[in-house]
Amino acid sequence: MTRVLIIGGGGMVGQKLAQRIAAHGLDGHDTCAITLFDMGFPPNGAPVATKITGTVTDGAAMMQLAKDRYDVIFHLASIVSGEAEADFAKGWYTNMLPTWTLLEALRGEHDASGGRYVPRFVFTSSIAVFGAPYPDKISDEFLSAPQTSYGAQKSCCEQMISDFARKGFIDGISIRLPTICVRPGKPNLAASGFFSGIIREPLNGMEAILPVPDTVRHWHASPRSAAKFLTEAATIDTKRLEGRRALNMPGLSCTIEEQIEALRRVAGQKAVDLIKPQPDETIMQIVAAWPRDFTPDRAAALGFQAEQEFDEIIQIYITDDLPNA
Amino acid sequence: MTRVLIIGGGGMVGQKLAQRIAAHGLDGHDTCAITLFDMGFPPNGAPVATKITGTVTDGAAMMQLAKDRYDVIFHLASIVSGEAEADFAKGWYTNMLPTWTLLEALRGEHDASGGRYVPRFVFTSSIAVFGAPYPDKISDEFLSAPQTSYGAQKSCCEQMISDFARKGFIDGISIRLPTICVRPGKPNLAASGFFSGIIREPLNGMEAILPVPDTVRHWHASPRSAAKFLTEAATIDTKRLEGRRALNMPGLSCTIEEQIEALRRVAGQKAVDLIKPQPDETIMQIVAAWPRDFTPDRAAALGFQAEQEFDEIIQIYITDDLPNA
Repeated sequence: MTRVLIIGGGGMVGQKLAQRIAAHGLDGHDTCAITLFDMGFPPNGAPVATKITGTVTDGAAMMQLAKDRYDVIFHLASIVSGEAEADFAKGWYTNMLPTWTLLEALRGEHDASGGRYVPRFVFTSSIAVFGAPYPDKISDEFLSAPQTSYGAQKSCCEQMISDFARKGFIDGISIRLPTICVRPGKPNLAASGFFSGIIREPLNGMEAILPVPDTVRHWHASPRSAAKFLTEAATIDTKRLEGRRALNMPGLSCTIEEQIEALRRVAGQKAVDLIKPQPDETIMQIVAAWPRDFTPDRAAALGFQAEQEFDEIIQIYITDDLPNA
Repeated sequence: MTRVLIIGGGGMVGQKLAQRIAAHGLDGHDTCAITLFDMGFPPNGAPVATKITGTVTDGAAMMQLAKDRYDVIFHLASIVSGEAEADFAKGWYTNMLPTWTLLEALRGEHDASGGRYVPRFVFTSSIAVFGAPYPDKISDEFLSAPQTSYGAQKSCCEQMISDFARKGFIDGISIRLPTICVRPGKPNLAASGFFSGIIREPLNGMEAILPVPDTVRHWHASPRSAAKFLTEAATIDTKRLEGRRALNMPGLSCTIEEQIEALRRVAGQKAVDLIKPQPDETIMQIVAAWPRDFTPDRAAALGFQAEQEFDEIIQIYITDDLPNA
């Protein structure tokens, strides 16, 4: 029985991850006991897990999670990019310092166990660790020079996790997720929301705003891929990382125009007609600073795979999320 | 009158920096009042400054330094690479967390002043933020994947400083210094010590151990250059950094053999004869993981310049430090 903790398990990706582990286990482990830690949980969410309500900013709660000595810890909890940008202190005190507190508590357990307790620690980082200007394709050796607080906080966590892992206190890996698309649920205020919205809303018979030109190129993976990346990161032989424990995940690079063409193929012109161009200078500026394409060779060599066509990303939404929309 | 604080002002580079500022001021400022903060000071050190004895791990001391609202803050204080590697907790609690405490205190002063207080903040980072494997020459876009705790701590500080600066709480810049050579004074236990030792000891008529093959290539700058880089970083127009506030400094890439040839030209065969090869597997392994060469184009474009020949590095030691050796 593998004991799995998902910090941030109440969020969209956390829920997908819990469901995936409940259904398939973690490679090489027969069954998992799943615990979710978050500030709240969706009412119809994964019933397969123990739930602990709390916040990562509560140091005592982090200490307790460490004391519980889970075998695998997924750390997904953070406030989103927009909020971290609007509230500087909240961003650093939520997205960075609790990771330090947790790592220190895990080091304490490691020492208290005589070095036998070394949990697998999987951290969701983000392509936000990168900042413009970019090459056409971002290689695995491109620098982390974020232009948002969220990205800087993720980058600090990556460095801490790498060093705690190098010293053997945890067995850590940070995976830099592409923008997750199609996000299920209601539109939110994230600047990246429209990448999902222009697919999700039309599939639900609703209008969607497109605030940027359709020439914009971006880097996507489905929620299903995100959950799959996380379970794979939890079971990979980390020696194969050769000391570079922050990894660009694979994704699909496409333009908005290509997204729309895929929607036309999957759902017809009527769906496409629901997309309403409404240029927004602010969003255009934000999006202009985002990565467009990657060559994630290391992740590919390690067996990570994302969708190959945007049609597939749409189909995954239709299969996994549209019935509950 | 520009009020300058040098945290870590009792160390070798801190003392050189204080002397340089006392002699030449900071570009564009007529005179400077210099305050040094450190755990101790050399008895014959720079008499040109106010001295505060304290440690960066004392949060109250960091708060007080922020309250004193210096115009320019140089942050040089850290324990060295070897010590940070041997004592994990001491490394993180000395090299990383106090920087966070100080930045937060400076943000408090910024807010309390209605945003008028925005000190120039110059941080000494290091080429230790890089980790093998390397390209032949490390470009300005190469990733920070350190293989030491010291490097991880420096990298975290860089990210924090960049983000605090991006938000306007400080006007920050991190400069990644080459290995400083020729270090004056006694031999120390740093793994990099021999790069200085094989020049310094023979010039003082003493034997020096060479623990690695003379084919080893490394990246050097003189103490004089280090002090010059710091004063230039204190006065540069940081808009020219275009948001990338961590900067690889220029240096001189040369092999040990080239170092020895330079010593022969400057001080003759008698000096060279004092170098005793004594291979040390441990040091060879450590040194094999170090950067060998860079293309620091951004720093060059901003006007930073290091020595062009190793002979010059030796002459600087002879001029600046040999008389007091």
